[in-house]
Amino acid sequence: MNASLELLASLLPERADAALIISNENRRYFTGFVSSLGYLLVTKKQAYLLVDFRYAEAAKANAKGCEVIAYSSFSESMTELITDNEIKNILLEGSAFTLNAAEDIDKILKKCGTESIKNAELDKIIGKLRIVKTTTEVDKIMKAQRITEQALTETLRLIKEGDREKDIALELEYKMRKLGAEGISFDLIVISGEKTSMPHGVPGENRIKKGDFITFDIGALYQGYHSDMTRTYAFGQVSEKQKRVYNTVFEAQKLGLEAVKSGALCKDVDSAARDYIDQAGFDGCFGHSTGHGVGLEIHEQPIVSQRSDTVLQSGMIITVEPGIYLPGEFGVRIEDMVVVTADGCINLAALPKELIVL
Amino acid sequence: MNASLELLASLLPERADAALIISNENRRYFTGFVSSLGYLLVTKKQAYLLVDFRYAEAAKANAKGCEVIAYSSFSESMTELITDNEIKNILLEGSAFTLNAAEDIDKILKKCGTESIKNAELDKIIGKLRIVKTTTEVDKIMKAQRITEQALTETLRLIKEGDREKDIALELEYKMRKLGAEGISFDLIVISGEKTSMPHGVPGENRIKKGDFITFDIGALYQGYHSDMTRTYAFGQVSEKQKRVYNTVFEAQKLGLEAVKSGALCKDVDSAARDYIDQAGFDGCFGHSTGHGVGLEIHEQPIVSQRSDTVLQSGMIITVEPGIYLPGEFGVRIEDMVVVTADGCINLAALPKELIVL
Repeated sequence: MNASLELLASLLPERADAALIISNENRRYFTGFVSSLGYLLVTKKQAYLLVDFRYAEAAKANAKGCEVIAYSSFSESMTELITDNEIKNILLEGSAFTLNAAEDIDKILKKCGTESIKNAELDKIIGKLRIVKTTTEVDKIMKAQRITEQALTETLRLIKEGDREKDIALELEYKMRKLGAEGISFDLIVISGEKTSMPHGVPGENRIKKGDFITFDIGALYQGYHSDMTRTYAFGQVSEKQKRVYNTVFEAQKLGLEAVKSGALCKDVDSAARDYIDQAGFDGCFGHSTGHGVGLEIHEQPIVSQRSDTVLQSGMIITVEPGIYLPGEFGVRIEDMVVVTADGCINLAALPKELIVL
Repeated sequence: MNASLELLASLLPERADAALIISNENRRYFTGFVSSLGYLLVTKKQAYLLVDFRYAEAAKANAKGCEVIAYSSFSESMTELITDNEIKNILLEGSAFTLNAAEDIDKILKKCGTESIKNAELDKIIGKLRIVKTTTEVDKIMKAQRITEQALTETLRLIKEGDREKDIALELEYKMRKLGAEGISFDLIVISGEKTSMPHGVPGENRIKKGDFITFDIGALYQGYHSDMTRTYAFGQVSEKQKRVYNTVFEAQKLGLEAVKSGALCKDVDSAARDYIDQAGFDGCFGHSTGHGVGLEIHEQPIVSQRSDTVLQSGMIITVEPGIYLPGEFGVRIEDMVVVTADGCINLAALPKELIVL
């Protein structure tokens, strides 16, 4: 087994002889092998990756720390492994098994006299491992971030009055892909004018006009890893009110970032940004949490909110993204992704945050 | 309730008072409303769509045939509905509920003294409804197909020797999006040369060269509906062997299409294409089934294979896509999407299928 699989094996609860992992992200996390189907069976001593004929050759060459089994009948191969390893209880990945998939597995297990354990226990264990990133993971996330920034920089130069939000979003995605992204981290948010007051607005037919704010909440996918960044720009001109709101968010974000370091509580990072916004007269205008973890999934642990007592540790990657949303008027959000360190954090975003009028 | 919801309600088994649907596709199918989160509760008399604040306004304006409930606490709203409707047993969507999601629902149900039924029953009922398409659905799938064809036609004109597969795939996707596609139906397959012998090859660094076959297995997403088409083209020149294989697949596909009509068995359509390939001396070179249903999902019922006793009905949409794959040499696949009718089928694909040398 490799280091991450050994760690997982050592964390399995006493009453479980093995764990069965089926999500693409977690199979990739533990074995480094990418496939759209597969089963990772981890006992306390050994790990097996079961794949079908399509992936047999590639898995044998590339999967790390596990024995690769290319099955022609999944049920037969699984039965054999359960018998050979004397597995009596098996922990299922509760966030990935559907009820139907669990029913199918149970049919196989039943014949072996093996019980499945169906709860969120395995997810919690894996969550604890994934929450702290290795330097290899940080490197991939940083590359995803660099692609995002370059694509945005190139796209900003092209924007002119009358452009539609959805066309800008498509250009941005196209540029990311040209720069080597596997895809986008989520449906890119490019919204303008009044729509910027919606934290999760969808790019549409709106055309950019003078005096608009344009919000870009964007990210690229690189070797399985996500990035996440938000920038809000003014187009053509900017009002005093827009400036005041922008600078309030800018300052709040700075305070949020300053609160990040190993040992701090997630809720304190949230408070640092939120309190400033509330006290600046925008109480109730920041209706979402300050941030979230980023990695193989775009939203993962930890959640940076008032409800989160999670203690930040070095190597976690989180976003800091306060905003102010004024329905019927406009909204502003600024978001960076940072790596937590002993003394503070490394900001993975390099694009400027001072108010820019395009 | 609308017609599809009434049909669903009437098909619920006696022992279930209600069904709970959470997949995006099925919520959209029954209510026409698109969201990334929501719960559709269907009793034998009434349907309720529960959404959070983000979707409240849009759901009230657009969801069809159901009462929209914008919850602030899902648990409280759900409890109220269960009590008001005296729901004692509730059928969960087994293909969509994860074990963790089912555990969360069970916590709510338990307090109401309500039992969940966890199996594939609801999926089977919904599958039977979705397998036959309405004319509105056919229209959307046809529009997705037209976008695909136009994008391919425009892309074919640009291809030159030395182009990389992945760049062609990206161009194709970009054109589909420009033409109004919401996205792609699946990761587009654009592969060339020896790689065409892999039915599910992934576009990579390969550069197009004279004498290559290029296989395009592509589809666009339009208003939630998928399309699926495969064309294989020769580039620059074509050998006698390539011609022979191509024409064998071309003929086999024609025979498969001719076997399609209401009342025919799926396995007979498969046989019509497969037997011709086998008898032409390519026994064992067609290693996948002849087709599958297409709709809100790219692969849905029915499966057109030797193992499928499903009887075709008017209004089903299936693909017919035989192929011959010669490892180390090349492969050919030709795929159309058709609507089953009483006398045969309507072919939704309009691009020519005779061998074309680009």
